[in-house]
Amino acid sequence: MDTKRVVIIGAVALGPKAACRIKRLQPDWDVVMVDRDEFISYGGCGIPYYISGEVTDLSELMKTSFHMLRTPEFFRDAKGVHVRTRTEAVSIDRKAKAVRLRDLDTGKEEDLAYDTLVLATGSVPNRLPVPGADLPGVTAVTDLHAAKAVKDRIAQGGVDRAVIVGAGAIGCEMAEALTDLWGVEATVVEIADQVLPGALDPDFARMVQRHMEEHGVTFHCGETVQEIATSDGDHPLRVKTSARTLETDLVITAVGVRPNSRLAADAGLLVSLRGGILVNGKLQTSDPDIYAGGDCIEVLHRITGKPFYFPQGSLANRQGRIIGTNIAGGSAVFEGSVGSFVVKIFETTVAAAGLTLRAARKEGFDADHALVVQTDRAHFYPSRELMTLDLIFDRKTRRILGIQGIGKNGDAVVARIDTVAAMLPQKATIEDLSNVELAYSPPYASAMDILNAVANTAENILDGFNRTMDLEEFEKCFLSEPCDDVVCLDVRGPQDAAPFVARFGDRWINIPQETLDRRLEAVPQGKRLIVVCNTGVRSYQALLQLRKAGHEDAASLQGGIATLKDAGFIQIEGEDKGTP
Amino acid sequence: MDTKRVVIIGAVALGPKAACRIKRLQPDWDVVMVDRDEFISYGGCGIPYYISGEVTDLSELMKTSFHMLRTPEFFRDAKGVHVRTRTEAVSIDRKAKAVRLRDLDTGKEEDLAYDTLVLATGSVPNRLPVPGADLPGVTAVTDLHAAKAVKDRIAQGGVDRAVIVGAGAIGCEMAEALTDLWGVEATVVEIADQVLPGALDPDFARMVQRHMEEHGVTFHCGETVQEIATSDGDHPLRVKTSARTLETDLVITAVGVRPNSRLAADAGLLVSLRGGILVNGKLQTSDPDIYAGGDCIEVLHRITGKPFYFPQGSLANRQGRIIGTNIAGGSAVFEGSVGSFVVKIFETTVAAAGLTLRAARKEGFDADHALVVQTDRAHFYPSRELMTLDLIFDRKTRRILGIQGIGKNGDAVVARIDTVAAMLPQKATIEDLSNVELAYSPPYASAMDILNAVANTAENILDGFNRTMDLEEFEKCFLSEPCDDVVCLDVRGPQDAAPFVARFGDRWINIPQETLDRRLEAVPQGKRLIVVCNTGVRSYQALLQLRKAGHEDAASLQGGIATLKDAGFIQIEGEDKGTP
Repeated sequence: MDTKRVVIIGAVALGPKAACRIKRLQPDWDVVMVDRDEFISYGGCGIPYYISGEVTDLSELMKTSFHMLRTPEFFRDAKGVHVRTRTEAVSIDRKAKAVRLRDLDTGKEEDLAYDTLVLATGSVPNRLPVPGADLPGVTAVTDLHAAKAVKDRIAQGGVDRAVIVGAGAIGCEMAEALTDLWGVEATVVEIADQVLPGALDPDFARMVQRHMEEHGVTFHCGETVQEIATSDGDHPLRVKTSARTLETDLVITAVGVRPNSRLAADAGLLVSLRGGILVNGKLQTSDPDIYAGGDCIEVLHRITGKPFYFPQGSLANRQGRIIGTNIAGGSAVFEGSVGSFVVKIFETTVAAAGLTLRAARKEGFDADHALVVQTDRAHFYPSRELMTLDLIFDRKTRRILGIQGIGKNGDAVVARIDTVAAMLPQKATIEDLSNVELAYSPPYASAMDILNAVANTAENILDGFNRTMDLEEFEKCFLSEPCDDVVCLDVRGPQDAAPFVARFGDRWINIPQETLDRRLEAVPQGKRLIVVCNTGVRSYQALLQLRKAGHEDAASLQGGIATLKDAGFIQIEGEDKGTP
Repeated sequence: MDTKRVVIIGAVALGPKAACRIKRLQPDWDVVMVDRDEFISYGGCGIPYYISGEVTDLSELMKTSFHMLRTPEFFRDAKGVHVRTRTEAVSIDRKAKAVRLRDLDTGKEEDLAYDTLVLATGSVPNRLPVPGADLPGVTAVTDLHAAKAVKDRIAQGGVDRAVIVGAGAIGCEMAEALTDLWGVEATVVEIADQVLPGALDPDFARMVQRHMEEHGVTFHCGETVQEIATSDGDHPLRVKTSARTLETDLVITAVGVRPNSRLAADAGLLVSLRGGILVNGKLQTSDPDIYAGGDCIEVLHRITGKPFYFPQGSLANRQGRIIGTNIAGGSAVFEGSVGSFVVKIFETTVAAAGLTLRAARKEGFDADHALVVQTDRAHFYPSRELMTLDLIFDRKTRRILGIQGIGKNGDAVVARIDTVAAMLPQKATIEDLSNVELAYSPPYASAMDILNAVANTAENILDGFNRTMDLEEFEKCFLSEPCDDVVCLDVRGPQDAAPFVARFGDRWINIPQETLDRRLEAVPQGKRLIVVCNTGVRSYQALLQLRKAGHEDAASLQGGIATLKDAGFIQIEGEDKGTP
C-alpha cells in the first residue's frame, strides 16, 4: 500500500487507540490526531475517583501503565503519531478530502488533506433545560477541566452540600465520591422512579438506593428539577424540584450525554434521530473514507438487533482498534454490544448485561426472570459474601436476555456478569447457563455456583415447578395493601421467624420446612400462601411439598428475607439478614 | 408416570443432588440413597481448608447453607429421601433389577429392588506403589476420616515436617494448609518436572512453585518416591526418593484418584481402560436403567472431543441434577467439560480452562500462545494488582484452545478464566475474545481489559506483527547457554534498566522505546535482538520500529521482566518487578 495520511478528530479514547494501531500496522503512514483540548488521551471514567481523591492527581488519568504522560510529545516519540491540541475541526470537505482546522490560540485556519478520516468526536453532556442551569456552581463533570474545578472547590472547603441531578452511573459515582471521602451531604434528584433506570430493574435499583441511603445519600426519585437560582441563605444555590426546594453549595448535573455529531451532520454524513453517527460493521460512516467510533456513534444491540446509544470507554477502545485495523488494510468487524455495565456503590457492586426485564418486555419478548441469593464462595468457606443474581429470559425460546448482579465482593459479581455477557451473543439458553463450567474451588465458587443456580431456578420456573412472587408484588399484596386471604408461611427455624410472627401476627405462620410434611394440618386452608425463607431455597422445596398436599395457591418469595431486607421493604429490630 | 423406586449408590456429591432433584420433580417416588460411610453429603473439596483451620469444624463441611446438618434425618424430613449409611452395595443384579446391600455394622445382606439405579460411587485415591506406603503416618486425605486424623495429629503437636507426594491441586493445597497455618515444614515430591503438570504449562508452573517456595515450601520435581520406612531419628519416617532421603513426621500422598467402578464393571457395564464408567450424554451407562456420574465416570472433553477423567465436585453436582431430571422424565444432556480449574496458592490464584500448550500440541493442534501481563483494574485505580494471562490458540483456525491465569486478586483472575470457559464450547476465535464485552468501570477492569489484550496479542502474533520469545527460550539462549550474538535490548527507562546493564554488561543494551527512532544507530548490527520491557507492551512497539529500520532478527520477550521475575528466572538486587 502507498503511504497515506489518516486524520483523526478527537484524541481522548478511540482516537489514540486507532492512531497507534494504524502506526503499528503501517509504520510509514502519516497519522495526525487533532483535539480542541490541551488534555488528551485520558481515562474519563476515572473522573469520579479523581474527585473522591482515590486518584490523587489529574495527571494519573493521562499516564500510561508505565507512568509516562501521554502528551503530544509522547505520541510523537513513542508512537510516531502527530498530535495537534487546541485545534478545532471546523468542517469537512468530503469532495476535496480535507478538514478545515482552526488553531484555538491564534484563530488561524488551514485545510488538512486526508486519505482516510476518523471521527472520534465523543459526546457532549446534556444540559439541564431549566433556568439557572448556567449559574456558577452548576456543572457537569464530563471533562478534566470541570473535574479539576469541582475538586479544587471542594478541597478549599465551603462545600457542605451538593445536589446531583441524575441517578445514572455518573450521578451515583459522584454521590459516593462526595459523601465518602469529603463528607459532603449529597442529595440526588432523579426524574425516573428509581436509580440507574436504564440499567436495572426496580428491585435491584431499590437495593442500590438503600445501600446509598445507609451511607448518608438522600434520594428524590420521580422528581424533576424546575429551576436553579442563587440564594441569600447559608448556601449560595437553591434548587427547585417538582416537590421541594433544596439549598446547596454545588449542583452537579449528570443527566446523560449525547453524540457529538455536528461535524458529521454538517458534512452530510448519515446521523440517527438521536444524533448518533451511523456506521456499518467495519465502523465506516456513509462515506467509506470516513470512519467513526466511540461516544459519537450508535451501536447494534446484540439482543434486540436494533441500534442503541451506549457510550463506554471500553467500547471506544475496542472500536478504535477495529478502525485502525480496517484503515491499515485489515478486516475487522464490530458486532455490537450487549450493554455490559458495572458501577461501584460504596461497598457494593452492581453489574448487568443484556436487557432488563422491563426492557425485554417492551421489546416484545415473553420475558420472565429468576432471582437467586447465594454465597459467592462455598458456603463453608470463611470469607464468603452473599450475592444476588437476577436472570432475565425468554419463556418461548428459553434464551437468556439479561442478567443483573449485586454483592459486596465486586470482582466475584463482575465475574458472573462477564461470563453471561460472553454467552449472550451466541443466543445461549438457560440450559447452557445451567451447565456453564465455572472454575471451582471453595475459595472462589460453590460446587453448584450461583450462576448455575440462577439458571436452574429459571428452568424450574419455566417448567412449572417453581412458582414465584416478586418483591414488588409482595410489597403490594402483603405490606401496603394487605388482603385477609394472604398469609406468609415462613419455613425457616423458629428463631429466625419469631420477630416476623411477633410483628405480623396470624398473617405470618412459621412451620420449618423439615417439619412441614408432618404438620400439614397447620397450613391454613383456602388462603393464598406466600412461602418465605432466607433466600428462596427452602421455600421452593416447601412449595413442592404444599403442592403435593393439594395447596395449589402458593408462591415462593424470590430471594427471600435477605432480598426483602436488602431492598429495604422490611426492617425487623434485632434481626440481620442471616449469615451467608 | 407410575411411582418408581430409584436407588442411588453413593451419598457424597452427585448422589444427594440427584436424589433431591428426583424428589422435587416426582414427590411420590421412593428414592433410596446408600453409602458405606456414616459421613454423607459433604464438601470434600473443603478438606484442605478444614486441615488448615480456616474451616474450624468438620461439621461445617456437612451443613447446608442455612446451617442444618445434612444427616439421614435431614434428608428424610426436609427432602423425603431415604438414606442408609454404613451400607455397602455389594453387587448389582441387572436382570432382577436389584442391588445387594450389606449392613457394615451387622454384616446382614439383603436385596433392594430398583426401577432406576444411579451409580455415584466416586473415586478412590491412588496408592503409592512403594514399600512402606501403608505405614502409620502415611495417608491420603480424600475422605473426612483421614482428614480428621491428620488434623487431630497436627493439632496435638509433634508434626514439624511433612512430605507431600504429588504436586497436583490437592498436594499444593495441602502444602499451603500445613505451612501457612500450622508452620509445618512442607516438602513436596513430584514425579513430573513441574508442579500442577496436567493443568499448567511450564512457565506458569514455575510462577506457582516460586511463590510457594517464597512461603517456605520445598519442591523436588522430577523425583519419584522409592520407599518409605520408619526411622530412629528425630522424625519417625524416612522417605527415599530417586535423589535423596527425607526425614519426616508425616507423609501425605496426593498422587491422584481413579474412578471407583468395580461395582459397575462386575455388573458388566462398559468401563474404559482407565476405569471410568462409560455414559452417554444423558449420563446413562450401557444399561439404560442405570445412570452414573461424578468421579466414577469419564466425560467428553469439549475441545479434543475425546473422553477424559476430570473428577470435580462442581461437575458432580451438575451431573447429579441432569441425572435427576432425566430419571424423573425430563431430558437433559451433559455436553462435556472444558477442564476449568482453579487453585488458591497462598496469596496467589492460578486458574485455567481448556488445553495447555503442551496438551494442545500433543493433540495435533497447530497451537501457539500469547502471554500478557497487565493490571486487573484501570492502571490508575489505586487497588490494582498485576495479572498474567496465557492464551493458547490454534494457528490454522484461530480458535481459542485454552487459557491460564495467575494473579493476586483471585476473583479477578477467575473472572477472566470463567469468561473464556463459557466461550470455549462455541469454538470461539481470538477475534471473538478480542471483542468480548467485559463490564467496565475503573475499579474492576481496564477499558482495554487484559482479556481483550491477550486476544489482541494473539492476533498480532498470528498476523506476523508481533514476534515473541518465550521465557524458556530466553532462559536457554540468554541465561544458561548465552550466545555471543544474542543481545537484550531493554526499552524501559534508564533507571529500570541500569541494574540489568550492570549485571549483563554489553549483552544488555538500554534504549528507551520513546528514543529508539532517534537512536537507531546504537542498535547493534548483525545480532539477534531480544527486546524487553516490563510487560511486553513497549517491547512490541519497539519491535515494529526495529523492523521498519531493517532489524528483522528481533523478538519481544513475552511478559517482560515482570514474568521473568515471577518465574524466578532472574533476580536483581534492589529491583522490584515494577509497580502495576
